[in-house]
Amino acid sequence: MIIDKYNIRAEKINSLLCVGLDPDLEKLPEKFKALKHPQFEFNKYIIEETHEYVSAYKPNMGSYEVRGKDGWEDLAMTMEYLREKHPDIFTICDAKRGDIGYTNELYAKAIFDILGFDAVTLHPYLGKEALKPFLDRKDKVSIILCRTSNLGAGELQDLKIDGKQLWQIVAEKISKEWNINHNCMLVVGATYPEELGEIRKIVGELTLLVPGIGTQGGSVKEVMNKGMNVNKMGLIMSSSKAIIFSPNPKEEARKLRDEIRQHSLV
Amino acid sequence: MIIDKYNIRAEKINSLLCVGLDPDLEKLPEKFKALKHPQFEFNKYIIEETHEYVSAYKPNMGSYEVRGKDGWEDLAMTMEYLREKHPDIFTICDAKRGDIGYTNELYAKAIFDILGFDAVTLHPYLGKEALKPFLDRKDKVSIILCRTSNLGAGELQDLKIDGKQLWQIVAEKISKEWNINHNCMLVVGATYPEELGEIRKIVGELTLLVPGIGTQGGSVKEVMNKGMNVNKMGLIMSSSKAIIFSPNPKEEARKLRDEIRQHSLV
Repeated sequence: MIIDKYNIRAEKINSLLCVGLDPDLEKLPEKFKALKHPQFEFNKYIIEETHEYVSAYKPNMGSYEVRGKDGWEDLAMTMEYLREKHPDIFTICDAKRGDIGYTNELYAKAIFDILGFDAVTLHPYLGKEALKPFLDRKDKVSIILCRTSNLGAGELQDLKIDGKQLWQIVAEKISKEWNINHNCMLVVGATYPEELGEIRKIVGELTLLVPGIGTQGGSVKEVMNKGMNVNKMGLIMSSSKAIIFSPNPKEEARKLRDEIRQHSLV
Repeated sequence: MIIDKYNIRAEKINSLLCVGLDPDLEKLPEKFKALKHPQFEFNKYIIEETHEYVSAYKPNMGSYEVRGKDGWEDLAMTMEYLREKHPDIFTICDAKRGDIGYTNELYAKAIFDILGFDAVTLHPYLGKEALKPFLDRKDKVSIILCRTSNLGAGELQDLKIDGKQLWQIVAEKISKEWNINHNCMLVVGATYPEELGEIRKIVGELTLLVPGIGTQGGSVKEVMNKGMNVNKMGLIMSSSKAIIFSPNPKEEARKLRDEIRQHSLV
């Protein structure tokens, strides 16, 4: 199963760390800005500094799309580089896509087949039927938004349906109805540890992608305590800017890997 | 106000027609496939055939992203062409984006400033706070998914919160709380005319982007009867494949314009 790709890597190097490759051009060191492929060259540098601690890389599409076709090219080159040099590291396209079925077929082709990602993040609003082109891909992972990390996440996600909040319904649907090909994960923000704990109870052993540690302020300890599954796994702990824009990405990645590891030994 | 751009054009040519520029490469006539910029050349042909009947063009991102950087280039060229030749036609980026605020800033820049669209389609799941970078843009339109046209749209959208369905809550929030800059529209599928009528009652004069006529099977008559606002406006009637892949796009666009016009004269 495709989900094993992440688990095998995570067990092998004993790390649940995911690094977000979000190389916003304005924030890059000057020496990279001057290059022909600034985002690719920066990513290559980050990957070489951090890969020994990393089980997943997660580029966010927004960082590349803002550069138009040049950004797409740098992203495609990054993916090619990862497949060649580090084929055992799990790759997540943080694109938050979600359209009707016909268009989702095109997005699935673009992200899984052209760019070659293992996984993509998706919106649940159009329902399972619309997401079929992603969910049918047994060789790829659909990571569906459940409880997001932003401050105003609750505006819709906390609405109550027969005593259950919308994010609870979404978690139930994904784990019981949408995951028939054993290829679903959920996005749950580190900034809402209580909800994270509830979602863990609903979804059993399913893996949760957890953004929001680092600059967004989520606590590693709380996330680990509430979010791990029975195998002390089931989490992809994602940090982006706090690592890639630090003066020493390697040291920052190692520190976070260690902090995560420490709480998985409880 | 930016919304006037659409209304002025629609009144001037007496047409509520929007054509979806979704030039899937596989479906293009052979003579276009052989060109260096097949999607741009095809779009140019469609625009020149149909523009006299059209108040809005709506490229869907999926059709372009599946070609990677080449697709982005063709889309950028299409937008440049539209701005130069037909600056009074409203342009909608059907991208269905929606991330946390920081990333939405990048998407807004990519879609509004780099590509130069007037409007973008958005997911509501992360709430108003996350969409701020779009909603704050008084010079651009945010078109938010409310009731989508797909068969399984109801799975989440019909969930009941204190007697109201989720799409009703979304419609209320957009019209009462998210539209403070008078730059919001809603996506409502033509395939659900009853819900369309209810949404019209909730949102007053707000404009609804209505996909799903044409190949998806929505009825123009029903949509017009239930969807028009008090000014006999307030609708963007969108058709894609039925027009652009017909043997005679000009005639097909004229026919649909006439059918829409006929029902607006009731």
